[in-house]
Amino acid sequence: MSTYTVADYLLDRLAESGVRHLFGVPGDFTLAFLDHVERHPLIEWVGCANELGAGYAADGYARMHGLGALSTTFGVGELSAISAVAGSYAEHVPVLHVVGAPTTAVQAAGRASHHSLGDGDFGHFARMTAEVTAAQEVLSATDATVQIDRVLTVVRHRRLPGYLLIPADVSEAPAEPPAAPLPAADVVTDPGVLARFRDAIAARLEVADSAAVLADILVARLGAESALHHVLAHGLPHASLLWGRRVVDETAPGYLGSYLGAASAPGVREGIENADLLVMAGVQFTDLTSGFFSQHIDPARTVDIRGEHARIGDDDFRPLAMSDALDAVAAVLETHRDRFRLDVTPSAPIPREPLEAGTPLSQSALWHEVAAFLRDGDTVLADQGTSFYGMAGERLPHGVVFGGQPLWAAIGFTLPAILGAALARPERRPVLLIGDGAAQLTIAELGTLVRHGIPAVIVVVDNAGYTVERVIHGLHEQYNDIATWDWTALLAAMDPTGTSTGVRVDTVGALSDALATARTATGLTLVQAVVPSDDVPPVLADLAAAAASANRRS
Amino acid sequence: MSTYTVADYLLDRLAESGVRHLFGVPGDFTLAFLDHVERHPLIEWVGCANELGAGYAADGYARMHGLGALSTTFGVGELSAISAVAGSYAEHVPVLHVVGAPTTAVQAAGRASHHSLGDGDFGHFARMTAEVTAAQEVLSATDATVQIDRVLTVVRHRRLPGYLLIPADVSEAPAEPPAAPLPAADVVTDPGVLARFRDAIAARLEVADSAAVLADILVARLGAESALHHVLAHGLPHASLLWGRRVVDETAPGYLGSYLGAASAPGVREGIENADLLVMAGVQFTDLTSGFFSQHIDPARTVDIRGEHARIGDDDFRPLAMSDALDAVAAVLETHRDRFRLDVTPSAPIPREPLEAGTPLSQSALWHEVAAFLRDGDTVLADQGTSFYGMAGERLPHGVVFGGQPLWAAIGFTLPAILGAALARPERRPVLLIGDGAAQLTIAELGTLVRHGIPAVIVVVDNAGYTVERVIHGLHEQYNDIATWDWTALLAAMDPTGTSTGVRVDTVGALSDALATARTATGLTLVQAVVPSDDVPPVLADLAAAAASANRRS
Repeated sequence: MSTYTVADYLLDRLAESGVRHLFGVPGDFTLAFLDHVERHPLIEWVGCANELGAGYAADGYARMHGLGALSTTFGVGELSAISAVAGSYAEHVPVLHVVGAPTTAVQAAGRASHHSLGDGDFGHFARMTAEVTAAQEVLSATDATVQIDRVLTVVRHRRLPGYLLIPADVSEAPAEPPAAPLPAADVVTDPGVLARFRDAIAARLEVADSAAVLADILVARLGAESALHHVLAHGLPHASLLWGRRVVDETAPGYLGSYLGAASAPGVREGIENADLLVMAGVQFTDLTSGFFSQHIDPARTVDIRGEHARIGDDDFRPLAMSDALDAVAAVLETHRDRFRLDVTPSAPIPREPLEAGTPLSQSALWHEVAAFLRDGDTVLADQGTSFYGMAGERLPHGVVFGGQPLWAAIGFTLPAILGAALARPERRPVLLIGDGAAQLTIAELGTLVRHGIPAVIVVVDNAGYTVERVIHGLHEQYNDIATWDWTALLAAMDPTGTSTGVRVDTVGALSDALATARTATGLTLVQAVVPSDDVPPVLADLAAAAASANRRS
Repeated sequence: MSTYTVADYLLDRLAESGVRHLFGVPGDFTLAFLDHVERHPLIEWVGCANELGAGYAADGYARMHGLGALSTTFGVGELSAISAVAGSYAEHVPVLHVVGAPTTAVQAAGRASHHSLGDGDFGHFARMTAEVTAAQEVLSATDATVQIDRVLTVVRHRRLPGYLLIPADVSEAPAEPPAAPLPAADVVTDPGVLARFRDAIAARLEVADSAAVLADILVARLGAESALHHVLAHGLPHASLLWGRRVVDETAPGYLGSYLGAASAPGVREGIENADLLVMAGVQFTDLTSGFFSQHIDPARTVDIRGEHARIGDDDFRPLAMSDALDAVAAVLETHRDRFRLDVTPSAPIPREPLEAGTPLSQSALWHEVAAFLRDGDTVLADQGTSFYGMAGERLPHGVVFGGQPLWAAIGFTLPAILGAALARPERRPVLLIGDGAAQLTIAELGTLVRHGIPAVIVVVDNAGYTVERVIHGLHEQYNDIATWDWTALLAAMDPTGTSTGVRVDTVGALSDALATARTATGLTLVQAVVPSDDVPPVLADLAAAAASANRRS
C-alpha cells in the first residue's frame, strides 16, 4: 500500500486543481482506486445513490468551485452518468469523469466481461463519450501520467468536461509524483489587438449618447466576473440573461432586470435594445433564454465580447481574452466619469399588497415569499420549470448565486446539484427550488443530502405533474401527470435519525411560517408547497407559447 | 386530429408487433406524439419517474413479451436512458427507442435549442446510440414510413434494440396506413445443411455412451424454447447457465442444476463436462456465469448450436437456425428411445433442518424461505448481487420465469424491469429480489409500481450497502456503505392511498409470516429483510474471489 501509483498521481493532480470532493458510485472495477481516495489527505469520497445523481452533483460542485470530479464504473456506471456529462458540456462546466475499467489483459483478450456489450469491443463507451467531452484518454501504464496531465489541462483551460478510462491494473501501476504544477493557461490576448480594441471602444463611447451592458453565464464560467464588475461599477444600465443571473448584482445601481428578448419587461427591453452602444459579455442566446430568439440586437451598435475574441460591428478582435476586453471597457469608461450612469432603476419590483395568511397558495405568491426569504450569500438552484421561471419575476438579494440549467434543461438536475454546490461552498446556505415531477427523476439523492447533513432548504412545488409541459401542450392529458407522493413522509423515510424537517403547506401563511422556521433550522428543511396544477408563472406562460409554436413549425 | 400521421403509422406498426405498453417520460418534443399514443386503441402510455427507469421497464417488458418500446425526449431524455438501451443490446433484448426531437427547421437552422449541446450539431446523440443499437434512423417526412419499417424489421429479426429519432414536425406529417404486414423473418436454414447436420448428430449419438445438454438465455431470446423442450423431453441430463435458468424446467427429469464452470456443484460439473456428447444451445460464456471462464468444455465432444449456425467439433453448419438444429437433435434422440435418460437427479436440493422462528435472518435462510414461497407461474427478477447469486443455490418450481442481468450487470435494473415484466404478463405473479444499495439506484419507480397497482412481492435485502462489492474488495470500507433508509416508510410515502403493505423482518419466523401474508395480498408487498452486512451466499463468495483476482491481474 505504500507504493505511489497512477491512482495517487491522478488524485494529487485533482487536489492541486482544487478538488476536495469526488462524487460517484463504486463498482468492482473502481474499488482499488477508491482505496486511494480513502487514504488521500485532501479528497473526500461522496457516494451517491446513482450515477446520474453523482454526475449532477459533480456538475453542481464545479459550478461553485471551478472543477468537479466524478468516479463511475465501466459501461453501466459511466453511461448512467453520461447525460450529466453532456449537460456539463452544453453548459460549459468543467467536470473530469474518471471511469474504472476491466484490466488491460481482460480487454486485450476480448472476453465477455460484465458491464461490457459482450462483443469483445471495449471502445464503445469511450467513443460515445467523445461526443460530449473536450478531451478523452484510455490510460495505459506506459504514459498514464502524461495523459492525465493532458486531459486535465484541457478541462481546466477550456472549462469543459473530460474523460479518463482507467483499467484496474493501470490504476495500481507505480508512478512518480508530479514534478511540477500543471501548466497555467496560455496567455490568449495579443497586446496589439487589445490596444486596437481599446481605441475602438473609446471611439464608439465618445459619440454614444447611451450605453448598456448585457451579461451572461460565460462570464462566470471563464473567470471574468471581477472584470465585469469593474465595468458595472460605472453604473451603466445593464441586464443579464436568465442563464447568467449570478454574474450581476440585482440590487446594484443600473440593474434593469433579466433580458429575455420579447418576453422581457418593457424597461429592460428598451434599455438593452435601444442603447447607442451595447456591450455584450459572454452572451449565448438559447431558445429558452431569448424568448425563442426574439432578441432584437443591432450588431452595428454592439460590442460582442466572447471567450477569446470580440466583435465591434464588422470588426473582429482576436485573440483577445474576455477579462482583458472587459478591463479595457472599464478603463475607457473611467474617462467618461458618470456620463452613462443610470440612477433610477426602471424596473424595480413593484411592492405587492400583503396577502391574507389564509389565501390559497399560488405560483405568484409562492415565488414572492421565497424571494423574501432569500438572503445575502445564499446559493439558489432553481429547476428548469416553474421554479426557474417563477424566480424570473423576482429580484435577488445581493450576493445570491442563482443557478439553473436552461440550455441542457434536464429536469431533476438541481436536486443532486445542490449537494455538490453545498459541499463546494459550505459557508453559503443552499436553497433548492424544484417541481414534484422533476424531483421524482432524481429523488434518491435526497437521502444523500440527509446522509451528509446538508442544511438545505428545499421547496418542492406540488402540482401533481409536469406543469412546464402542460402549458406547452397537453394541459389535461394524463401523460403530464405523475405518481402521487407524500413528500414530507418521504423525507422522514430517508432520515431515520430525524435531523430534518418536512412540512406541507397550501396557504400563504403556512408557507411564510414554514420558511420562518427554516431560517433557524440546523438540519435539512423540505417544504411541500401545494399549488394548482394549471397555475404558471407569467414568464413561463409566454415562453411556453413560443415553445409550442416552435414545435409545430415544420 | 383526424389526419393519419407518421406517429400513427409507428404506433400501428408497434401494435402489429405485439406492443401494448409504451414506457417513457414526456418532454416538449414528444408531447404531440403522445397525443397519438393516448388516442391509440391498443397501446397504453406508462409514464415512469425517470428515463433510466423507463428504459429498464421497456427491457423487462421485452424479456417477457418479445418486443418493448420506450419514448424519451431529445438529448437529456435519451441519454438518461442510454445505459438501459446498452443493457438491452448486451443482453439481446429487442427494445425500440423512440426519441422526439426539435423540428427539422430548428435543426437545419443549427440554433442553440434546449436539450442540445448548443453547438448546432443535432447528430451527437444518434451517433452515440449507434454504438449500442442494431439499427438507427433520423426520420424525415419524405420516407419516414419506409425507415420505420426498416428499423423495426431489424429489431424484430435480430432481437436487438433500435433507435428512431423523430423531429416534432415529422411525427405530425401525413402518412398512409400500412398496406401490408411487416415482412416475416427470412428463412435462415439451408435444407442441405440441415440434412448434413442431422446425419452428423446421428453418427455422434450412435457411438456416444452418454449425452447431456447445456442451455442458455439465447434459446429464449431467439424463440427456440419449444424446440429445446422437445430435446429435453427425452430425459437427458441437462443444465443451464445462471443467465438462462428460464429456458429449463428445474423440476424436470434429468435436470442437474446450474452450470457455473468451476463454481458448479460437483454433480453438475461432471454431468456436463464428462458427457461423451454435449449439446450446447445458445450458450454464451460470460465472466460472471462461467466462474470467470473456468468452464472445461471439450470442443471435440460438443455440438454448439448458435443463433444461425452450429458447430460439431471442427465442422461448421450454416446457415442453420437454432430451432431447426434443436428439432433435428430431438428427431435423432427419438430413435434412441431412453438410452440417454437420467432418472435420478444427482444434485437434488438437500432438505434442510427447519430453523427456529426466532433465528436471526441470514442470507442462506432468506433465499431458502423465498424459494419455498415461489409457485408455478411466478415471474422472478433477481438483481445482480446477493439476490441473483443467493437464488443460484435454490431450485425453482416448474413454470417460474427467472431473470437477472448477469452480463450488463446494472444493479438496480430489476426494480423498473419488474414493472415492465408485470405489465407484459399480468397473469403471472411478479416477485422482485433486490439489495438495498441496488434499490436506491432506481427507487423512484417503486412509486410507478404502486401507481399502476402492480401486486408485486418485493424483498429488499437490507445489509446497509453493496455487499456484492464488499466481498470483492473493501469489506469494511465506507465507500461500500449507503444512506440508511426506512424502506417500509418509504413505500408508505409513495402510496398515499395505502393499498400496499410494508414489513421489516430480521428473523426467520418473521420472514415466513410476512411471505405468508403476501400470498393473499391484493396490493404490493415490500419485505425489508435485514441480514448481516458481511453475510454472502456461497456461490457469490466463490465468484467474488475470482472477480477480485481478475481485477488484480495486469
